[in-house]
Amino acid sequence: METTRRVGSGVEEVKISHMGPEGSGGFEPLVVLEFTASANQAAIEWLLAKLQAPKTEGGADLLVRTLFLQHNKETMLLIGASNERLLLAAELQEVKRRHRDGFFHEFTIQDIQEFVGSDDLESFFTQAEKQKLMMKEIENIRAAELDVHIPGYEDVRLYPGKSIIKKYLSREIVVQMFPLHDEEAIKRLGNEWYQPKNFFKLQPIHKIKQYFGEKIGLYFAFLGVYTVSLIPPALIGIIYFVTSWRSVYREALFAIFNLVWSTIFLEGWKRYCSELTYMWGTIDTATAKFEEPRANYHGHLGKNAVTGKPEPVYPKWKRSARFYCVTVPVISVCLWVAFIIMLFYFWMQHWADDVYAGNKGWINLMLVYVPTAIYAVLIGILNGIYRKVAKLLNDFENHRLDSSYENHLVMKLILFDFVNCFICLFYVAFYLQDRVMLNSFLSTMLVTQQVVGQIREAMVPFLFLRRRSKQLDDALERRKVVDQQTDSEDVDPAAKKQIVVESAMDVYDGTMDDYLELFLQFGYVYLFSSAFPLAALWAFLNNITEIRSDAFKMCRVFQRPFAESASSTGAWQVAFEIIGVISVITNCALIGMDPEVQKLLPSDVTAINVVLIFVAVEHCVLAIKAAVAYFIPDTPRWVQIEMARMEYESKQALQKEKMAAANRKKALLQKAFVKPASKSTML
Amino acid sequence: METTRRVGSGVEEVKISHMGPEGSGGFEPLVVLEFTASANQAAIEWLLAKLQAPKTEGGADLLVRTLFLQHNKETMLLIGASNERLLLAAELQEVKRRHRDGFFHEFTIQDIQEFVGSDDLESFFTQAEKQKLMMKEIENIRAAELDVHIPGYEDVRLYPGKSIIKKYLSREIVVQMFPLHDEEAIKRLGNEWYQPKNFFKLQPIHKIKQYFGEKIGLYFAFLGVYTVSLIPPALIGIIYFVTSWRSVYREALFAIFNLVWSTIFLEGWKRYCSELTYMWGTIDTATAKFEEPRANYHGHLGKNAVTGKPEPVYPKWKRSARFYCVTVPVISVCLWVAFIIMLFYFWMQHWADDVYAGNKGWINLMLVYVPTAIYAVLIGILNGIYRKVAKLLNDFENHRLDSSYENHLVMKLILFDFVNCFICLFYVAFYLQDRVMLNSFLSTMLVTQQVVGQIREAMVPFLFLRRRSKQLDDALERRKVVDQQTDSEDVDPAAKKQIVVESAMDVYDGTMDDYLELFLQFGYVYLFSSAFPLAALWAFLNNITEIRSDAFKMCRVFQRPFAESASSTGAWQVAFEIIGVISVITNCALIGMDPEVQKLLPSDVTAINVVLIFVAVEHCVLAIKAAVAYFIPDTPRWVQIEMARMEYESKQALQKEKMAAANRKKALLQKAFVKPASKSTML
Repeated sequence: METTRRVGSGVEEVKISHMGPEGSGGFEPLVVLEFTASANQAAIEWLLAKLQAPKTEGGADLLVRTLFLQHNKETMLLIGASNERLLLAAELQEVKRRHRDGFFHEFTIQDIQEFVGSDDLESFFTQAEKQKLMMKEIENIRAAELDVHIPGYEDVRLYPGKSIIKKYLSREIVVQMFPLHDEEAIKRLGNEWYQPKNFFKLQPIHKIKQYFGEKIGLYFAFLGVYTVSLIPPALIGIIYFVTSWRSVYREALFAIFNLVWSTIFLEGWKRYCSELTYMWGTIDTATAKFEEPRANYHGHLGKNAVTGKPEPVYPKWKRSARFYCVTVPVISVCLWVAFIIMLFYFWMQHWADDVYAGNKGWINLMLVYVPTAIYAVLIGILNGIYRKVAKLLNDFENHRLDSSYENHLVMKLILFDFVNCFICLFYVAFYLQDRVMLNSFLSTMLVTQQVVGQIREAMVPFLFLRRRSKQLDDALERRKVVDQQTDSEDVDPAAKKQIVVESAMDVYDGTMDDYLELFLQFGYVYLFSSAFPLAALWAFLNNITEIRSDAFKMCRVFQRPFAESASSTGAWQVAFEIIGVISVITNCALIGMDPEVQKLLPSDVTAINVVLIFVAVEHCVLAIKAAVAYFIPDTPRWVQIEMARMEYESKQALQKEKMAAANRKKALLQKAFVKPASKSTML
Repeated sequence: METTRRVGSGVEEVKISHMGPEGSGGFEPLVVLEFTASANQAAIEWLLAKLQAPKTEGGADLLVRTLFLQHNKETMLLIGASNERLLLAAELQEVKRRHRDGFFHEFTIQDIQEFVGSDDLESFFTQAEKQKLMMKEIENIRAAELDVHIPGYEDVRLYPGKSIIKKYLSREIVVQMFPLHDEEAIKRLGNEWYQPKNFFKLQPIHKIKQYFGEKIGLYFAFLGVYTVSLIPPALIGIIYFVTSWRSVYREALFAIFNLVWSTIFLEGWKRYCSELTYMWGTIDTATAKFEEPRANYHGHLGKNAVTGKPEPVYPKWKRSARFYCVTVPVISVCLWVAFIIMLFYFWMQHWADDVYAGNKGWINLMLVYVPTAIYAVLIGILNGIYRKVAKLLNDFENHRLDSSYENHLVMKLILFDFVNCFICLFYVAFYLQDRVMLNSFLSTMLVTQQVVGQIREAMVPFLFLRRRSKQLDDALERRKVVDQQTDSEDVDPAAKKQIVVESAMDVYDGTMDDYLELFLQFGYVYLFSSAFPLAALWAFLNNITEIRSDAFKMCRVFQRPFAESASSTGAWQVAFEIIGVISVITNCALIGMDPEVQKLLPSDVTAINVVLIFVAVEHCVLAIKAAVAYFIPDTPRWVQIEMARMEYESKQALQKEKMAAANRKKALLQKAFVKPASKSTML
């Protein structure tokens, strides 16, 4: 590339050849790539060329316009695609679509008439689907053997088979890549979802899924089901709080109810989840054994053992070695640090209490609360550090599939957060065995965390909203500048404004943090339920506002995230189930340790036998829990039958097709036999 | 049917029409149906007609010869099938066969050339496969709406959709239905399998599977792997026995080793099992959701929700009602009886000990052992009764699928036998807390059971062998009579002799009892391993002889069983895993209760804390066990990859086929367009 002219004009030249299939409706940008202001021109042009080059030359074959922002010298690529290109992408990515027979089948262009909605190709894919298809195509532009480095960046080495765009992103040559909001659709969705008048209505889960994809849809469905499931324990908590019924059975009954209830909730969610994913056609996607590797999975270029296609290969022993030799020791050290900090806190607290006991006064009273404050801050800092460590370790392990990458990350985060947040509760409950302290600790931590969370989640959106309207004004001023500096004339000016606004919006970090928050809350509610019966009420109140503030943020505050498909809540289901098992142990132990309860037993039972009795009870509860989980089918009967019918019918259809093909062949042969003269023309 | 002539002549008439496809090689009987001597002639002829009638008329379309035994007035039907009929059966039963592409696909006659071994249709199916196909076809002769009762038996009502042959068998009009041995093949197999010179060789698992089917193949594979897995604990047991190393760690170390080892063994078996079933092509048969119902599943004739085909339908709530209202109470009562009998035993023993202590003498010494003897006899009787009860309850529950019928039966048997055999051990170990008594009890029960078992399994075959040779002589004498009385002249006389001999052989009861025996043995070895380290050695010695005596029985003593397919050891895997979990609990408790071990702990630890420490250890071990089981994949990597490749390649092939079909269509249309005149002939 010897030319040094402005990128835009280059685009226009290429664009013309792509105008044909696009139709007359003007260019509709769907995904935006934003370069840093200091991006090297050669790097921009190289990526641009790759985006536009045909598939056969390793490109993505997409439509691109350039937008140059005069005020900050940034270049943006607005990316669109023709319908034909999207159909091809859907076929290559083995997307499942609803077939005329009512079931989901892998889409092929060949059979497009057989799929529901194919009579109007414009609306055949939702906007979210289009953006997802395009993202995958952009991510799948991989470096060839000859691409040694990014043009203009001698130091940014490329490895064959590795995703190019991920390199641009990781080296911050491209600052961000995001899909654009659909202003019309988001307005309608928001009205239904977070408007106060719909406060007591169920969330429009299917519409959420349509706009944000299955993964976010499942998160909000889970949040909803979980919140509803908190009502019974919250009611009991209120009754306990207002009535004066004091009995030794009080806590035990509540704990037993909670153990049963948490099992029912988790089993119920699993069933509801499989209903949803069945309706969305993603229920059996998890069984796909030949998924494409993650975009930034690296390794030497080899062959996939299943498909035989070239792809990066990374030996499993290396991953195991990294896991056992790096991840495990690092995590152990981190958890050990968390434990030491907790011990340090209790030592400080002990010291402060001593000082206060000797010298009661205003300043000393304050001093008593200083250690707790320090500890709270430290936990927060540690949580932040651990999150980064978990991500680094997980990247380092180089998992091949998106799903396994995410599962491993979730497991690490869960372990860190569980230890970090709950270790002091366990210490108080079972080492110090101080019931009063446990109660105050539990209520303080839960309430503090939720108040802080509420402020962060309900107030911050307000601030964002104000900031955003200011941005809007800025953008309006800037518009003229934009218009003069760009040569993407066929892009709607309103769309350009929207692009500039959205590029300044915050990025949604994924459902990980949201789930983690629920996970910790679930732990606070169920782990020590006999110690703090009001926990469920607090959690419930928190969640009903959280749903709406989360919804508002999704619609108005964040950049639109790329839709991701999901077949279940995956590792989170396991995580919540583990909390369920641990809560059996903790609650049995708490009740068993209660001196009031121990008094109930016949006086000739020795202390050891008391313990043994409670251990036996605990084992029975665990066994019953396991049996219940085993006997309740994970999938509702109607979904099972429908899935079986789908399998059966597709098999029947296949057989019929084979039969028909054979008959055609036979008929042709017969004809050829009857009239030997026409044989050559027939076959 | 007004004719009263002998059945045989009727057969001959029908037979002629079936001679065509059979070829010139004479009639080869594969399956035998034996009527009782008092069977009504009309019933025999009706079944005969059903067996021969074409599929379209509800028959089985098989080849049948009649054999009338003069000496006991019994009628036998010798059943064979043409190759075409077997191919059709294989297609209807959706049998999977190895395809040219190396994978297993459902067999279709259409694509027969694509399947391995199809160039020689005679040997395309093994004899075991042929017999299995025929059995299914015979069982699938179902009563039509007009078949009210079995002809000649006004009182034997038939229900539409119910298997006719099962009714004949249950009312003992047909005494037995069995496949014939292949004398040549069984001789070769036996030589390899149980001859003393091959004592230290591995079992010929693949050949066993070929002759007896996957289910029996898996049993012997499991028995082999399990026996080998006993070597390390047996060696340690010997070392413990011969060395004088006495330490408090002794039992604890052994128990820990056993816990780890049993987990590794069970996970290892799961992986090996999936390798075997992958190679045999049955690995994913368990996922089939539209299996045919069990032959004696009953209900009103309705429609299958999946396939839409007519089949008996039985509402699920009825099954649940029967389970909760009948099965659960009956089982509870049975277990309660077992408990009462155990208490009675200890009461008797106590009384006998008292008498002996007061009055030591010969007769009183004998008296001390009387209660144990009575208890042993009672356990044996109870086991027998419970087995019958379990079967009755299971039949009553009316499960739809063979697999679920068997799983439920296995669960019931396991529960009964576990409680019956182990309840006294638990009582001694944890209620009486008498270590010496536990040790003697455990060794007595294990050794007694195995000695009795060895006598039964090693001596009885000898006796059978002698009885059988006598039968052979009888049969030889009888031969002339047989020949005179039958009109199945195209059956080889030697085969007729064989049939008579085999009809008198014992019936193999299935793998259930064999697994149950191993299950109990596994329990004796691992549940209380710290109390009796030599258990593994005893079990090992027992099993290496058991393998050979079982093999001998399979080949020489029993009637050939029908081959059954299996994708895994199913409920047994779960049962062994449950024993593994329970053994963690029992061993931790045993070690924790050991006063020697307790002395090791610092003296300032209170008794309660000792218990708590051991409970904590136990929980950790269980958690580690769960984690290990979770992280070791159930299927070896190579099998996973191969299965994924199979899925991928079949998908690719399907796509290619569709493409080709479309191209053909396009080409035809084009031609039609070019030469409009020939259009009518072309399409």
